[in-house]
Amino acid sequence: MEGETKPKLIVQKFGGTSVADTERIKNVARRISETKRKGHHVVVVISALGDTTDRLIELAHRITPRPREREMDMLLATGEQISVALLSMAMHELGHEAISFTGAQVGIVTDSAHTKAKILDVKVGRILEELEKGSVVIVAGFQGVTLDDQITTLGRGGSDTTAVALAAALGADVCEIYTDVEGVFTADPRLVPEARKLESISYEEMLELAATGAKVLQLRSVEFARNYGVVIHVRSSFSEEEGTWIYDGEERMEKAIISGVTHDIGEAKVTIFDVPDRPGVAAALFQALAAENINVDMIIQNVSEEQKTAISFTVSKEDLRKAEEITRAVARRLGAGEVTVDEDIAKVSLVGAGMRTHPGVAADMFSALAENGINIEMISTSTIKISCVIRAEDVKKAVRAIHKKFGLDKGVVMRA
Amino acid sequence: MEGETKPKLIVQKFGGTSVADTERIKNVARRISETKRKGHHVVVVISALGDTTDRLIELAHRITPRPREREMDMLLATGEQISVALLSMAMHELGHEAISFTGAQVGIVTDSAHTKAKILDVKVGRILEELEKGSVVIVAGFQGVTLDDQITTLGRGGSDTTAVALAAALGADVCEIYTDVEGVFTADPRLVPEARKLESISYEEMLELAATGAKVLQLRSVEFARNYGVVIHVRSSFSEEEGTWIYDGEERMEKAIISGVTHDIGEAKVTIFDVPDRPGVAAALFQALAAENINVDMIIQNVSEEQKTAISFTVSKEDLRKAEEITRAVARRLGAGEVTVDEDIAKVSLVGAGMRTHPGVAADMFSALAENGINIEMISTSTIKISCVIRAEDVKKAVRAIHKKFGLDKGVVMRA
Repeated sequence: MEGETKPKLIVQKFGGTSVADTERIKNVARRISETKRKGHHVVVVISALGDTTDRLIELAHRITPRPREREMDMLLATGEQISVALLSMAMHELGHEAISFTGAQVGIVTDSAHTKAKILDVKVGRILEELEKGSVVIVAGFQGVTLDDQITTLGRGGSDTTAVALAAALGADVCEIYTDVEGVFTADPRLVPEARKLESISYEEMLELAATGAKVLQLRSVEFARNYGVVIHVRSSFSEEEGTWIYDGEERMEKAIISGVTHDIGEAKVTIFDVPDRPGVAAALFQALAAENINVDMIIQNVSEEQKTAISFTVSKEDLRKAEEITRAVARRLGAGEVTVDEDIAKVSLVGAGMRTHPGVAADMFSALAENGINIEMISTSTIKISCVIRAEDVKKAVRAIHKKFGLDKGVVMRA
Repeated sequence: MEGETKPKLIVQKFGGTSVADTERIKNVARRISETKRKGHHVVVVISALGDTTDRLIELAHRITPRPREREMDMLLATGEQISVALLSMAMHELGHEAISFTGAQVGIVTDSAHTKAKILDVKVGRILEELEKGSVVIVAGFQGVTLDDQITTLGRGGSDTTAVALAAALGADVCEIYTDVEGVFTADPRLVPEARKLESISYEEMLELAATGAKVLQLRSVEFARNYGVVIHVRSSFSEEEGTWIYDGEERMEKAIISGVTHDIGEAKVTIFDVPDRPGVAAALFQALAAENINVDMIIQNVSEEQKTAISFTVSKEDLRKAEEITRAVARRLGAGEVTVDEDIAKVSLVGAGMRTHPGVAADMFSALAENGINIEMISTSTIKISCVIRAEDVKKAVRAIHKKFGLDKGVVMRA
């Protein structure tokens, strides 16, 4: 039986909940062991144990409200270093050869944007050496090293990116992302019990799902996968079931018009009033935000009245404090008016590649919201996505209404 | 006033109890800040927070009873990485420039004897660069890196060695070891309330004190200090008082006959019976132990009877399991008899450079024990030290008796 399986190179990534305590680490080790016994080569990427990262952040905040980012990276990188060492020990205990590496040791080279670093290069020499010896190679996710030997981290969910980057650099057959859900769903099953698991999805759609609030994969990891053609398999670390495959190609069975409905309550809205309506104003604001590495999501500029306008934009709540500060400074410089922030917003989005060729999707979405008395505050569209900002309290109702409107609970609506 | 102080280069080392929580880390930062304000250059070495190391060891043991040492080092090195990042943040909060480094980043190059690595080289380029910028340089104690980029640790108390090695490599004026006691005492004040703090002591005496159980400094750090002439100042992190200076030289005021009485309950005794009495037998045993990096302390070989003998030796309890295993294997190979282990022993020692020129010190020590009904099981002497192994339950009585016999409570007994 086993002889039939051609040996593959598989990258397996396990998140923080999969390694929340030593018992779960042992479970992960058994899971890896099964793959290894089938004759495959395995590279494992893991996150910090459970809430370790949050506890480290809390420690830092007890010292100072604004720790420098270089030192935060020194601090946070320890979380994954602990878990790789423990998982390696668990593999030894099961009788497998295994070796752990930090991001720095393995050569995950990043830029120097501390706490949000981007991977520039992955050196695979050391990993290949260990794989040839038959070892399971266990790499600390979420972290890297700059060319001048500073420890960096990749931002929340960065372990996904580590896994995909390693899969790309190694030319792995598949990158398995183990998580606490069974795959990618048409909506968050906690909000919509009728939500269905998708068998497969394209990179493009997964990108939009991740960008609009699906927590299952970090956006950058999907971008990375698309750019390098890495096949991702998102699946549960608690079951043997197949999860959701992410790849492009004609052999994909399921090509639905709509992939899913997502929501995001992690953003806040900043509005700057009475902005002088002249060229360069928006540029001044968003360049200042970009210079501080703040990702702006939606932007709306009001229709101008009396040479004045208002600009609203959304950022992640994590960046709100910094964004507000920068916006106030820019507002003073430009002679603009009041700056307000609003944290009680939610974004609901509808994603589907079939949207391109099916007019009327946006109209249907807006009417689903209207029928439920939900007011739309901002709208943003791409060729395969429509997002609406609404009041946070309406989010559950909104997701359910849209999910139902498009018949996502009833099975696959195939593309023409 | 401050102008009068010539700027010095000071290495300050703070142990785990000095950085047990975030409040204490802030205290340490204030302490460093005072030194910095006097215009000195400061390099700081710190240990892991409080019981972090013990908790990491416990985590590992929940995974496997015998974790591999390379992975233990990966795991344990995180403890100091956390504390340097936090201390650096605390320095920033006080308005000082500061930067943290791991042992690997700073270039503390060690051999590859994981969990007990020895420092081979210290690269100071990066530290000097930061000192020139006016930064406080904060280095993770206890850890280093091999030439092929494996993370190593230096063994219990290794942070002292890191501090002294840095002081030596940097040519520092003094290496201040901050601890939870006020200096080096004539005996452990918890056992002997009359014990006195020593103003100064020679390297040689400090070596014997450390080797025989004084916990205040790690043995290897004193050896390092002696070899490179590093002046050590052991002092309390909770007071401004001067502690004990460790250095050689005529200017040392205090030259007592006896420096102190130490005790050690961390050793165990292994005995191998019916050993064939022929050349090479002892060598076979102790080479096998050395090959596994086990430090043997005292060794006694019985007077031979009928071509058979017995050998007893002591090792630290941490190494007992491994030592017992090796001894049993060697015993089988040599055709020797039973191997027994005894963990209920204590070692009491008397240390003093004046011993060399004062005969009768050993006799006085033995009679102090005899007068208190304490049986001596093993004896070992050097030119400035006498150690006796006794039952563990007698240790307090023994230390007090010897301390009193030599009048250590009454002040300095000056050397002739």
